[in-house]
Amino acid sequence: MRTFAVVGHLAATGNGFTLDDLPGSAGRMDLLCRCVNAALALSHGIRRDAEIHLLLLGPPAPPKEVLLRGDSVRSLSPDERSTAALIRKALALPVGEAFRESTPGILVRRGGLPGLLAGGGYAVLSEEGKDVRGQEALPPGFVLSDHLDFTPEEEGLMTGLPRLSMGPRVLQADQAITVLQNELDRREAGWS
Amino acid sequence: MRTFAVVGHLAATGNGFTLDDLPGSAGRMDLLCRCVNAALALSHGIRRDAEIHLLLLGPPAPPKEVLLRGDSVRSLSPDERSTAALIRKALALPVGEAFRESTPGILVRRGGLPGLLAGGGYAVLSEEGKDVRGQEALPPGFVLSDHLDFTPEEEGLMTGLPRLSMGPRVLQADQAITVLQNELDRREAGWS
Repeated sequence: MRTFAVVGHLAATGNGFTLDDLPGSAGRMDLLCRCVNAALALSHGIRRDAEIHLLLLGPPAPPKEVLLRGDSVRSLSPDERSTAALIRKALALPVGEAFRESTPGILVRRGGLPGLLAGGGYAVLSEEGKDVRGQEALPPGFVLSDHLDFTPEEEGLMTGLPRLSMGPRVLQADQAITVLQNELDRREAGWS
Repeated sequence: MRTFAVVGHLAATGNGFTLDDLPGSAGRMDLLCRCVNAALALSHGIRRDAEIHLLLLGPPAPPKEVLLRGDSVRSLSPDERSTAALIRKALALPVGEAFRESTPGILVRRGGLPGLLAGGGYAVLSEEGKDVRGQEALPPGFVLSDHLDFTPEEEGLMTGLPRLSMGPRVLQADQAITVLQNELDRREAGWS
């Protein structure tokens, strides 16, 4: 299983946002939707061996965690608006500490980065990391930030985790996931 | 200059589509918008050394070619809806054989694949191609298809062009551009 987790520092935690303004009123939900696509979608099909955790930290009820599982999600379209509609539906559910399923393969709970990292097995995607191509072994999980840097508090939670860079130019979060998925595909298939 | 060209077989060639249904009524304009982002956008900035040609072949007035130039485009946001709004604005212009500028760095003309390929210098991105990482030299231009295969007529135009594969799993068009941009970044910067 390949696990991705993206911190959405401004991302909406209620279902009150409009699908017509994902960058603004939904707190860069557009970026998170593209991350879902990068983590789970192929040209014609879903990556059944992948999942992505969206850690939503914006108003009105942070923190929330939305989990999209490739092994059970259905009717996932690649466009931002469709994915945002599914996330918004999940955010309409009352939440506690345990995951609740909103639609098949899409779950939501109250939770943030500390709970996620407690499970272990994560590397941090960061422009100051080591080149991913040069690393012999890669962990099963990867955490990255949205368009903003990690906060000092978040950095404190990740002290000691391996850090990986995807290349010499700083990519958008979804682009970094796409490049990493390709690297993992190549290793799995025995390509260089 | 890095040049990308994407054939949008169903993509709208008029400005009558709604931004609320880019996959449907706009003929997978969502995918083309993600390709623009993959070709031109970095985490914080625009790739000034890249351009992307969108070849739009859907109703009502095919073929049209929309060119987005990284060296002169302004106010390009990464979300699909904003990019689609800019493309729609370009499609409102009456067009002939010569490019007309709609907004800074975004141009439109009547034209399709034959005119584009006549300029030379293209490789085709295809799952049956050779692994891009194994190719010593890469051309300056790359052409790829949307979610549909190239037609036999289009394939006929591309006979003899080099074919490149991005990896063992078939990616969405925008994902293929992202992986290729990363490979080009690495070569330019002397990374492995």
